[in-house]
Amino acid sequence: MSRFLSDNYKSLVPYVPGEQANVKVIKLNTNESPFAPSPKVKEVLSEQVIDNLNRYSDPELKELTAAIANRFGVTPDMVFCGNGSDDVLAFAIMGFCGKGGKLCCPEISYGFYPVYADIFGVELEQIPLKDDFSIDINDYINKGKNIVIANPNAPTGLALSYDDVEKIVSSNPDNLVIMDEAYMAFCGKSCMELVKKYSNLLVTRTFSKSHSLAGLRVGFGIAQKEIIEDLNKLKFSFNPYNLNTLSIKAAAAAIADNEYYDAKIAEIVEIRDKTQKQLEALGFRCTDSKANFIFASSDKIPAAKLYEELRKRNILIRYFKKAKIDNYLRITVGSAEEMQVFTDAVAQIMEENK
Amino acid sequence: MSRFLSDNYKSLVPYVPGEQANVKVIKLNTNESPFAPSPKVKEVLSEQVIDNLNRYSDPELKELTAAIANRFGVTPDMVFCGNGSDDVLAFAIMGFCGKGGKLCCPEISYGFYPVYADIFGVELEQIPLKDDFSIDINDYINKGKNIVIANPNAPTGLALSYDDVEKIVSSNPDNLVIMDEAYMAFCGKSCMELVKKYSNLLVTRTFSKSHSLAGLRVGFGIAQKEIIEDLNKLKFSFNPYNLNTLSIKAAAAAIADNEYYDAKIAEIVEIRDKTQKQLEALGFRCTDSKANFIFASSDKIPAAKLYEELRKRNILIRYFKKAKIDNYLRITVGSAEEMQVFTDAVAQIMEENK
Repeated sequence: MSRFLSDNYKSLVPYVPGEQANVKVIKLNTNESPFAPSPKVKEVLSEQVIDNLNRYSDPELKELTAAIANRFGVTPDMVFCGNGSDDVLAFAIMGFCGKGGKLCCPEISYGFYPVYADIFGVELEQIPLKDDFSIDINDYINKGKNIVIANPNAPTGLALSYDDVEKIVSSNPDNLVIMDEAYMAFCGKSCMELVKKYSNLLVTRTFSKSHSLAGLRVGFGIAQKEIIEDLNKLKFSFNPYNLNTLSIKAAAAAIADNEYYDAKIAEIVEIRDKTQKQLEALGFRCTDSKANFIFASSDKIPAAKLYEELRKRNILIRYFKKAKIDNYLRITVGSAEEMQVFTDAVAQIMEENK
Repeated sequence: MSRFLSDNYKSLVPYVPGEQANVKVIKLNTNESPFAPSPKVKEVLSEQVIDNLNRYSDPELKELTAAIANRFGVTPDMVFCGNGSDDVLAFAIMGFCGKGGKLCCPEISYGFYPVYADIFGVELEQIPLKDDFSIDINDYINKGKNIVIANPNAPTGLALSYDDVEKIVSSNPDNLVIMDEAYMAFCGKSCMELVKKYSNLLVTRTFSKSHSLAGLRVGFGIAQKEIIEDLNKLKFSFNPYNLNTLSIKAAAAAIADNEYYDAKIAEIVEIRDKTQKQLEALGFRCTDSKANFIFASSDKIPAAKLYEELRKRNILIRYFKKAKIDNYLRITVGSAEEMQVFTDAVAQIMEENK
């Protein structure tokens, strides 16, 4: 630490991203898609576009917000795009909670929420899950605080129903409810329709999971236009050109290619369900995950041990050394071939450690 | 504005970027390079790299920090990369000035400094320039506040000498001095060497001007490693994956291609000096600009009028409606052909408005 860092940030503990691998591994630890992005992405990243990189990108992101608005049946002034959905969440928590403001989230959820609360000086209440890892929506009804919930939740994979989300949103009209739908594409019914009805709802999404573009860094939020205006006010006061031209063009092409992604998403869901059955046959308990990962535990082998043994075999999964989930593992759904190597390795490790 | 925006930000006035053109224009208004980026950029943005975008970018940016460190003769732990240098400046002012902290800058300078001060709750002193638009370094000696200076300054184009920068840095050992060298590549002697000697100096740079990559959004800061650690702490608490894979690869390739960029920079300087002489022949006063733009004024035509007349001819330059400089125009140096069209148009407009 330098002598110059502001007192506000001296005790800040940053987020720790999942490990990036240097050697050839089966990488099932950061919920990436195993598939390449849509071929349309390559098409739009033409030599001409690259040669024009001497010109600034469009700070208003018109091409991309129009494509997203078109895909989700909203108007472009209801769309805010960020440099990854982390960027959207950061601006939202900065802007709507603010220093001394109040926010609550599930105790077990995306590990970045407490970091945002810390950096922006927000008072965070972390609400315990039920014993089965589900969210008790009664904890969030008439809460009187801003709320952020990942739906489906991570790392549990469990989803709230559309009706339950509406109950939370409608009972907190004077506070912002952020539904982080990073994994919703694998799931079912998004609450995105509700933004038309409720002025206090912000739904965030990412291209990193369902759209095979984690390396491109694009996410977005959908809400009524006053919320979007506020987010833009912060963006234009922090980093107006927050997306580069390549990201804008590639993401706009990707979001329009439903055919490609619908097929890939269906394939991931199928591989997830098959892998989950294989793990259950090996004696694992798995949550009813609606995301592109599996959350699993076994009484036959400690999660930390299995994590280490898989690591030795160059298979990376995610282990959270955290109370209540420290005997669970989060396994990203890879390709069918990768998951077969994974389940074979698990079976072998279980056999060796009987 | 929504009902939910924090009181901290209700009066925030965002930065207004230079206009992005939709129709075919001669664009001399945002200090972009008129040249395409190095051909090496196209080479590294291969189909394989695009197909691998399903994987997260490296949050530690090892490839890019190594390339920058190599180029400037520092170690990688002395390099912080941002999503544009705006990102670097934002984290620096957030982290080192902090809410209630103190910062000073020249009164006429990059218009974003007051916006950063506003968003982060920093008390900003804007110090007037001398009548000839130069910075009086005595104003910054033993200042006892954090300092940010664009060198060369914008929109004046005037540069501080290496020795003057050292006097400022050495006389403020307990405060951070940020030297924003966005335009230094066109100029001469960077103060980057001084970071090895002074722990309170942060030098920022961008790929947007000299490296023809405004649309890629990459900037960086160079300082002693404790400063870089602090900037990374903030980044990993805000947006760990702040650069995408394409930006990382393209910027690393560009920074290594000295031969290409040295030639382009020399060409821009030559065009700048020639255009400046042409304007002077038309009766303009120009500052001794060391950047890739010209700052010019004439008693024969009001700047606002000339700006509008050029605009009608689809030539965009920048006019700042701001006290002390409201009869000046900032003209980005374009290609030789573009500047000929520009000076011909200026001559014609002057003739018509005699």
